[in-house]
Amino acid sequence: MSTPCRRRSAAAPVRAAEPSDASPAAPHLSPEPRPLATSKNTVPSRRPRAAATVPAPAATPTARVVIEQPRPVVECGSLPAKATVGIPLTITASVFADGHDLVMGWVRHGRPGAGLDTSDRWQELPMRTLGDDRFGAVLTPAREGPWAFEIVAMPDLYGSWLGDLRIRLDAGQDVALELEEGARMAERAAALPGRAERDRQALTSLATRLRDPSATQAHRLQEAARPPAVTLMRHTADRGTATHSGPWRLTVERELAGFSAWYEMFPRSEGAEPPRSGTFRSAAARLPAIAAMGFEVVYLPPIHPIGGSFRRGRNNSPEATPEDVGSPWAIGAAEGGHTAVHPDLGTLDDFALFMADAERHGVEVALDYALNCSPDHPWVVEHPEWFSHRADGSIRHAENPPKRYQDIYPLDFGTADRAGLWQALRDVLLFWIERGVRIFRVDNPHTKPFAFWEWLIAEIRHHHPDVIFLAEAFTRPAVMQRLAKLGFSQSYTYFTWRTSKAELSEYLTELSQTERVDWFRPNFWVNTPDILHAYLQQGGPAAFRVRATLAAMTAPSWGMYSGYELCERVAADPGSEEYADSEKYQLRPRDWARPDSLAPYITRLNEIRHRHRGAIALLPALRVQEIRNDSMLCVSRVNQARDDVLLVVVNLDPHHPQEGTIWLDLEGLGIPADIPFEAHDELTGISYVWQGPESYVRLDPAQQSAHVLHLRRR
Amino acid sequence: MSTPCRRRSAAAPVRAAEPSDASPAAPHLSPEPRPLATSKNTVPSRRPRAAATVPAPAATPTARVVIEQPRPVVECGSLPAKATVGIPLTITASVFADGHDLVMGWVRHGRPGAGLDTSDRWQELPMRTLGDDRFGAVLTPAREGPWAFEIVAMPDLYGSWLGDLRIRLDAGQDVALELEEGARMAERAAALPGRAERDRQALTSLATRLRDPSATQAHRLQEAARPPAVTLMRHTADRGTATHSGPWRLTVERELAGFSAWYEMFPRSEGAEPPRSGTFRSAAARLPAIAAMGFEVVYLPPIHPIGGSFRRGRNNSPEATPEDVGSPWAIGAAEGGHTAVHPDLGTLDDFALFMADAERHGVEVALDYALNCSPDHPWVVEHPEWFSHRADGSIRHAENPPKRYQDIYPLDFGTADRAGLWQALRDVLLFWIERGVRIFRVDNPHTKPFAFWEWLIAEIRHHHPDVIFLAEAFTRPAVMQRLAKLGFSQSYTYFTWRTSKAELSEYLTELSQTERVDWFRPNFWVNTPDILHAYLQQGGPAAFRVRATLAAMTAPSWGMYSGYELCERVAADPGSEEYADSEKYQLRPRDWARPDSLAPYITRLNEIRHRHRGAIALLPALRVQEIRNDSMLCVSRVNQARDDVLLVVVNLDPHHPQEGTIWLDLEGLGIPADIPFEAHDELTGISYVWQGPESYVRLDPAQQSAHVLHLRRR
Repeated sequence: MSTPCRRRSAAAPVRAAEPSDASPAAPHLSPEPRPLATSKNTVPSRRPRAAATVPAPAATPTARVVIEQPRPVVECGSLPAKATVGIPLTITASVFADGHDLVMGWVRHGRPGAGLDTSDRWQELPMRTLGDDRFGAVLTPAREGPWAFEIVAMPDLYGSWLGDLRIRLDAGQDVALELEEGARMAERAAALPGRAERDRQALTSLATRLRDPSATQAHRLQEAARPPAVTLMRHTADRGTATHSGPWRLTVERELAGFSAWYEMFPRSEGAEPPRSGTFRSAAARLPAIAAMGFEVVYLPPIHPIGGSFRRGRNNSPEATPEDVGSPWAIGAAEGGHTAVHPDLGTLDDFALFMADAERHGVEVALDYALNCSPDHPWVVEHPEWFSHRADGSIRHAENPPKRYQDIYPLDFGTADRAGLWQALRDVLLFWIERGVRIFRVDNPHTKPFAFWEWLIAEIRHHHPDVIFLAEAFTRPAVMQRLAKLGFSQSYTYFTWRTSKAELSEYLTELSQTERVDWFRPNFWVNTPDILHAYLQQGGPAAFRVRATLAAMTAPSWGMYSGYELCERVAADPGSEEYADSEKYQLRPRDWARPDSLAPYITRLNEIRHRHRGAIALLPALRVQEIRNDSMLCVSRVNQARDDVLLVVVNLDPHHPQEGTIWLDLEGLGIPADIPFEAHDELTGISYVWQGPESYVRLDPAQQSAHVLHLRRR
Repeated sequence: MSTPCRRRSAAAPVRAAEPSDASPAAPHLSPEPRPLATSKNTVPSRRPRAAATVPAPAATPTARVVIEQPRPVVECGSLPAKATVGIPLTITASVFADGHDLVMGWVRHGRPGAGLDTSDRWQELPMRTLGDDRFGAVLTPAREGPWAFEIVAMPDLYGSWLGDLRIRLDAGQDVALELEEGARMAERAAALPGRAERDRQALTSLATRLRDPSATQAHRLQEAARPPAVTLMRHTADRGTATHSGPWRLTVERELAGFSAWYEMFPRSEGAEPPRSGTFRSAAARLPAIAAMGFEVVYLPPIHPIGGSFRRGRNNSPEATPEDVGSPWAIGAAEGGHTAVHPDLGTLDDFALFMADAERHGVEVALDYALNCSPDHPWVVEHPEWFSHRADGSIRHAENPPKRYQDIYPLDFGTADRAGLWQALRDVLLFWIERGVRIFRVDNPHTKPFAFWEWLIAEIRHHHPDVIFLAEAFTRPAVMQRLAKLGFSQSYTYFTWRTSKAELSEYLTELSQTERVDWFRPNFWVNTPDILHAYLQQGGPAAFRVRATLAAMTAPSWGMYSGYELCERVAADPGSEEYADSEKYQLRPRDWARPDSLAPYITRLNEIRHRHRGAIALLPALRVQEIRNDSMLCVSRVNQARDDVLLVVVNLDPHHPQEGTIWLDLEGLGIPADIPFEAHDELTGISYVWQGPESYVRLDPAQQSAHVLHLRRR
């Protein structure tokens, strides 16, 4: 295998790049010397003379424009960047030429390898200047699957000529010759082979008007400057000398990959009457409430048979009683492995009913893809070669020395029967895809080979481009980012541990303002069965509202694990992030009707997300705004059209009222500074009238920990 | 032509990259489906099933390590990065694997395409961790010319095994099986084909010691952990599954490209007795003084015949008198063009004598490469097709509408006889190279095609790798950077306009701490014949000392235009950066013996540069240190070994004394905080004793505007 950069050829433009020997930039690769054309200035030499490496024909005449840092491009194009159906993607690049000519550029995009039949010819978007030689165009993908774009740029000779012409006229110079040159430019364009008749006539008539002896030079300038004339000349410019960058690959996923609210539940707890487990049927009764809270995805931890060997008891005790249900992540028993369901939950038919109920209520089911086995997993007998063995021939259980996890056998991805194992693991996904599952939450992907994920995800997407993968990779940044680059649709993040204003400001800026937006889709989880942050343990209900507001309003995707709405916050031990009586090891039926439930608040948050979908989904437009209080955070969200502006103001202190002065970047938000505007709190329905960048805010956690203000015309 | 990214293949690894169809990451490029291996978990499908894209053989067994962001790599490797003989270059990359294993990496480097004959096999440097999954190795190039490096990395299985073994033993676990696994690891390494006999025996004996029944497990761990054993196991690890990044190209230039002091002079002024011009012979008399000041390069503006048509008079007046000498940049007259010398200066033989004198005094001569012609240039008659023409057939003169420069004809690089023109322009360089010139200052390269420079520089370097090009591109950042990427050895910068503490801090950080160090070698000029900054006009001698100190101490290369040492500071007009009586248009003999000359101070600066060459040349080690005064700047310079530390403290206010407290990053400078150290002022010879990060400094421009402190043990 080789690295992304080494695999540049894997990123190969759909059109082949020119052969390297066309580049005079690489002396050690330079082509056969050609005989030197004699020249008056050449003098006989005592040293071996330079052979003339005449630039390759492809470079004649010279393309004058340079295109640098095209975005989104991942690892020099060796991996596809991400895009989402319905979510605007701004494609940018540095575009510049030598000298003083203006430049013009286009983004061409379409199906990779397409364009042969007219049915799917590539589309073209003109690029607009963003300043400092950056240019951009906005592409909003319409369908999922592989996509590609290229950037084409060249000097804007007509625009440059026009600009100089105006300056010369203003300076009172005679421009007869310049006008004639413009006329010839139009004639050359008209004479290009393959020129459409309509354009040819328009160009010829433009030439005539530029030469019109009966018109003043000023009038002829006006003719030259008319928008239709300018558009015509740009549109018909000879692209023979244009510069191309790309094509660059995109993976377009469906909208849910870029905008989603997740709810995690253990089906065995729903309707359970310990020791009797809940079932798919009893769990299905919970679906309407989850849908009513506005969640799009209900994620189920592993639903497979659970191993008995070395089963963990309540609170992760090494000794399990016969009544202990065990951890669903210890997958595999006599009843089957990754393609079986736990008998307590019901049958595959019951699962099908659960799926049907979910569909009826408009929520999608996500399954857990956890690639490890209990000692009782069928594969242990059927495919012992898929596991690694110790010197005594025994199968190696999971370890993190000196800790031992005897209830888990990790798979050996480097096994001699690598193809067999990898395909079996892929077939597990296909098995559930057959049953309508289109979303998988992947358990600890960072402990399996990168090459496996790159292969697996591409393999599945090739036939099922609507499948979404969420990476649970709580690991180092480089590894977390790599998994996203390899194709995971979404990723768990460090959000759960970012609680201070400084931490949140830095993290939100990093996730929205760096090139990570090209491949990394953060999913902000407020908690998981493994993570009950001290902030929640100590902050009480206000802390739960704060974190839910931050996650739902600042991230395009967010999630919570059931029980959050009831503010469950008892830790296993002081200083631990583990839950007491963790649902990982026991049944946890709950009273959802409790009057103190945050369900109504969470419902409101998801309503706001849907009302302002365009703003919430557009991560690159997120900005941390200034607010003069170290316990308060102010974040703006804006849609592409900049006609929907949200301002999220949060008091991070769950115990005390905080007040501060906001200082808004009004220009960035597209809000005029000189007229009053309405700040409508989507949480309370109360409106305020603001004007100018400065506003005062006070938030008392006893009543309200956050504003979600819709800034709009009065 | 195509863009850098499009030309990834031009950057092609010297070894071909694997075919793109080896990558399962590109669905639309994926290989022929293979028959699906049946698997117990596979179920019959209603949909068209996924074809098994079994990973390519090259990826079996899987390479587990990822290498990302290798540096220095320019534009994804489409252009070579820069390196300099004798100046340490740190090669870095992010290197990481899945799971918990340690990783190890090496930088391999050598002549591109070499390694066939043993004479120039590639060298190998082990990489050390830099934290956050970054690894680095330091390469100090020994010879100029094209060079290349690649990064090789793989899991450190032995190191990981050893770490776990220690933890297990410390936890009191029995490690008999682990020791046996270690022994087998050594045996597998010994059994690798092509294994040297010496290594094979060492590995076998290691295996024996790990199994030694007479030794305790703790003792056998000690055996395993002995440095020779660890080195042996790393060194003999099977690289079959290693990951490769590169090879990446480097252009290694001689030391002067990375460390140089330039002095610009008009030879016609030296020894001139207006109206009589100075000559090469009279100008040569100035060389000893220039060498004595410590300059390595003396740069001459164009020395060619000057056109008479539309010649500019004194102070750029449109009317020239017969006595006016004209601008040397209006190149070409009856006496010849770019390969002739101005008769007033003498003959080519006189130039040869000037060159010989320069060599005798240890200074190199740089010539000006200015690609434009006067209307009297021979090419206008010999090659009218090399110029662009207006609609009436006349040759187009230079313009910046509405301004017209009738004394200059720009060349038309897009001419039909492009090959002829480009070769002629290359031959101009070869002509002077024949005469011993090895340094060229290039006039306005940003107004000529990028493709021309890329071709020209590669072409010249291919045969004359010792030729140095300085780009005079006072233009937008993207264009200035692009020219450096294309091969210019050094570049003029914005330094001349960065005068405040904030501006200097930001600019120095940008030039030393961003990836620009991979291709951009700044040359800080304190003035040029075109640029007399207001700071100098108004600040008097103190300002001249301040700017010279900043340039000489913060940049590896710096330069000044003659007259600077005399503090010449009269501008053509108020608010103008042009000199009054500019030497561009008239002879300017000077009295170098003036008692107020800064020559002694400048000499001292260049002496310090040579005494601390390793620190001054190492731009990436530059740090802006904290000093609590907005008119004072504090910059540290450190060599690679961190045994030579300079601290440059400057009072930017040329009119008033300033004082402030310095707060040093002692750890970064490798200075212990708990023992006193000496701060020896290289400018005054005075020493101070400091301890800890905090020190007080006061600088009175009336006496001294700067400290250059050598921080050293007492």
